[in-house]
Amino acid sequence: MKPTKKLRSDIAWSTHDRIGVLGYDLCRDLIGKVSLGDMGFLEITGRLPKKNESEMFNALLVTLVEHGIVPSTLATRMTYTGAPESMQASVAAGLLGLGSVFVGSTENAARMLTDALPNPDKDVDLRALANGLVDDYRSEKRILPGLGHPIHKPIDPRTPRLFSIARRTGFNGRYIALMKLTSKRAQKVFDRELPINATGAIGAIACEMGIPWAACRGIGVMARAVGLVGHVLEESRQPIAREVWHRTEHEATSHTRGKLRRK
Amino acid sequence: MKPTKKLRSDIAWSTHDRIGVLGYDLCRDLIGKVSLGDMGFLEITGRLPKKNESEMFNALLVTLVEHGIVPSTLATRMTYTGAPESMQASVAAGLLGLGSVFVGSTENAARMLTDALPNPDKDVDLRALANGLVDDYRSEKRILPGLGHPIHKPIDPRTPRLFSIARRTGFNGRYIALMKLTSKRAQKVFDRELPINATGAIGAIACEMGIPWAACRGIGVMARAVGLVGHVLEESRQPIAREVWHRTEHEATSHTRGKLRRK
Amino acid sequence: MKPTKKLRSDIAWSTHDRIGVLGYDLCRDLIGKVSLGDMGFLEITGRLPKKNESEMFNALLVTLVEHGIVPSTLATRMTYTGAPESMQASVAAGLLGLGSVFVGSTENAARMLTDALPNPDKDVDLRALANGLVDDYRSEKRILPGLGHPIHKPIDPRTPRLFSIARRTGFNGRYIALMKLTSKRAQKVFDRELPINATGAIGAIACEMGIPWAACRGIGVMARAVGLVGHVLEESRQPIAREVWHRTEHEATSHTRGKLRRK
Amino acid sequence: MKPTKKLRSDIAWSTHDRIGVLGYDLCRDLIGKVSLGDMGFLEITGRLPKKNESEMFNALLVTLVEHGIVPSTLATRMTYTGAPESMQASVAAGLLGLGSVFVGSTENAARMLTDALPNPDKDVDLRALANGLVDDYRSEKRILPGLGHPIHKPIDPRTPRLFSIARRTGFNGRYIALMKLTSKRAQKVFDRELPINATGAIGAIACEMGIPWAACRGIGVMARAVGLVGHVLEESRQPIAREVWHRTEHEATSHTRGKLRRK
Repeated sequence: MKPTKKLRSDIAWSTHDRIGVLGYDLCRDLIGKVSLGDMGFLEITGRLPKKNESEMFNALLVTLVEHGIVPSTLATRMTYTGAPESMQASVAAGLLGLGSVFVGSTENAARMLTDALPNPDKDVDLRALANGLVDDYRSEKRILPGLGHPIHKPIDPRTPRLFSIARRTGFNGRYIALMKLTSKRAQKVFDRELPINATGAIGAIACEMGIPWAACRGIGVMARAVGLVGHVLEESRQPIAREVWHRTEHEATSHTRGKLRRK
Repeated sequence: MKPTKKLRSDIAWSTHDRIGVLGYDLCRDLIGKVSLGDMGFLEITGRLPKKNESEMFNALLVTLVEHGIVPSTLATRMTYTGAPESMQASVAAGLLGLGSVFVGSTENAARMLTDALPNPDKDVDLRALANGLVDDYRSEKRILPGLGHPIHKPIDPRTPRLFSIARRTGFNGRYIALMKLTSKRAQKVFDRELPINATGAIGAIACEMGIPWAACRGIGVMARAVGLVGHVLEESRQPIAREVWHRTEHEATSHTRGKLRRK
Repeated sequence: MKPTKKLRSDIAWSTHDRIGVLGYDLCRDLIGKVSLGDMGFLEITGRLPKKNESEMFNALLVTLVEHGIVPSTLATRMTYTGAPESMQASVAAGLLGLGSVFVGSTENAARMLTDALPNPDKDVDLRALANGLVDDYRSEKRILPGLGHPIHKPIDPRTPRLFSIARRTGFNGRYIALMKLTSKRAQKVFDRELPINATGAIGAIACEMGIPWAACRGIGVMARAVGLVGHVLEESRQPIAREVWHRTEHEATSHTRGKLRRK
Repeated sequence: MKPTKKLRSDIAWSTHDRIGVLGYDLCRDLIGKVSLGDMGFLEITGRLPKKNESEMFNALLVTLVEHGIVPSTLATRMTYTGAPESMQASVAAGLLGLGSVFVGSTENAARMLTDALPNPDKDVDLRALANGLVDDYRSEKRILPGLGHPIHKPIDPRTPRLFSIARRTGFNGRYIALMKLTSKRAQKVFDRELPINATGAIGAIACEMGIPWAACRGIGVMARAVGLVGHVLEESRQPIAREVWHRTEHEATSHTRGKLRRK
């Protein structure tokens, strides 16, 4: 088969004495000069962050590294129990649960805001926009992304912290304002506490930083990979997966143990 | 079933207004204060890095983020082609290839050095130790980990850069010395270029930092997760996987296409 | 925390001398009595298949086991290159690509048919239903699932084979009829070849067998896991991944090799 | 780069009207003619099984499909909780735990037997061989693979069932005899119940069938993929993962909740 198109990747190259990563000389410009979080910014945007961008972006990542015992870390620990020789597989198993239910809400929030305000410089009535969003989601019976939290009530403590960094670093713009107005309106319309949660705050700040909504899941994936390594290491020192397995098996099958269909 | 042991994890907890991560208050001590790489150090060691540790550890991570088009990034891109809705699955597919062949050599190097020098403060003849290592590996026909590179010859440019940072940050100790002596001896004994490659340098520096060899694969996993996100995003903008697939399928099956066993 | 609900799984239990699987005695009723494909039917429906069901269901599975060199098998082979010690990880990497693009069309076809004809016993005008489906998808600019194939033209050879087995086993009902009428109408409306492909045939037959659309992806997952093992074994004997990697890397980076941003 | 070698795969090809799979015409020879388990045999050995081989091989597969609530099925269910849109990812997460601890013992048993008896037709004293195996493993403090079970005592009920099928199908040869003698000797030497468990029986039978030890893990992977689909479907109807998560999180963090290092 004749090639039908040229293969092309602009991410990295090597020669015998040099390595280029997204246009930078790995040894001269990156190693010892930038942090892992800055590399994440580089992978997503194609350029190194300015100082304020580095500060804000690392804050987003740090927020998502660790949630303790949750389904993804339990998947990691269960996998480690069967395949302790493959740390990478245990981390991968944990990442696989970062789907629509938990991590997806960051990108949903960013997408909602981007769709509502494609051009943040255009002069629009944000309050009317927020009211329209709430009304639309309500009439379509869709859940407003980035609002409410089962534990962190009445506010999610990560949100004011992130917004305070956004102010300090110059990212406190119209997407954050729109998110806040949406939360306010939603609380009124649904008559319950619907504070902006961490995923809503991160989605709004990602919009402020010009990160496309489709890249937002990547922020969570980068951060959680770091945390999942910690869970593999703790499980190796101080295991819980076997005990959880045995208890669960015992309880879940007690009603049926020994029972067979008639043959 | 009665629980037979108490479940216990020291990584994180949440209350309605606070989140603790490895003993730190997430909002007060971590978000906006530390970088993603520092969180990686915290997950591996249980404490935040000092300034010199942060610099050295981020340098290790940055070295491993990106290798361009390699088997793991191709696995990520192939997976994206079939499941573009699941970025996390594409990244997980790429991580799965970080096994014994590529990333394993970091932990093998660290293990070799730790086994040879369990107590770095003890006064031993490093040259004799290095000579013994080379002789042992040679007689057992095992490959010395962390030495040699197919492209980066006669030196791997990442190694002097990393060792220079190790000097600056106070991590230029006996494990690095032992690794250098091992490389020197191996070049003589095998009569070919066997410079310390990046995985050998990282393994030696991890030993200097007190990171257990069994945690070394985690450094690679954290770093590569960051890079794999970049490959998902590039594949979404500028795909190569379908073209690689079509060319490979065509060539690999041309000798057999249309041929059947006689029935 | 007090348990808030009882854990319950009806799939399997063990005692010292017996193992129950979905109500059957594993040793007495299943091992040596049924085939792997029948176990698949049991896992999906909760009961063993009758003879005609076994024949039809195994035919669906066999159709999907093997597609040769495709993105998922390339992901498997790339992963094997880095982690040959973990066959299960290579198979898992391949499964991860069975997402919306390739395997998803089976469930989309089954869902389209189920939504259109929730009660297959009700007397409705199938032709009108088919015409309505095509019109709806067209006006919403959605792709009709299960129709058309880039290679298998003017017909997909698997479809007549599967439909012939469906006739022989008593599964040639109204869902297949509706699928055929939809294909016919689509070819007319879009004025091009849109034969029922294998995923469309399987989706329709799954509906005939009473398999819920949401379980259809499971048929593909079961089948492809079998095929992916074969690719791991061939890659171990007769590798292609490294050569594909080197060629791809070389071509994809040739335009940028050696180029750096100015600093 | 000039291609340095020809890519070649003998597994499958397609033309517009035909599909070849390992030399068979998919539509003429396989669909409707063979079962999923037979396809598994074809993928591993490159040919379709004879009747007795099909019976024996399907019995091995059926034995491994389902073990109820175990670490791998819990990893699958945890992953489903976060990413219900990706059944394939949940199944993949479960497969990732089929490593050295559980599934590895089948290949270890097969490898032990193959190493001890590379040529099954050669006349050797099996009893002496078995005694030597037990002595060697004992002196090296290695665990004899395929012997003993925490629940199934004094015998694993799957073993006599599998061996009875082996007799019926003509696979009751010297590897099974060697395994039995090894178990007998081990019970005497270690003075405790060490019956041949299912993985030991499967390893021995695989040797009888001429399946290489390195392919044995593939039998488990094929079988468990089928079972894991059942766990995804049960979790979707009758979830347990969230309750397990909440209970585990609560208990595992109760000792540390609210505690912070002094700053």
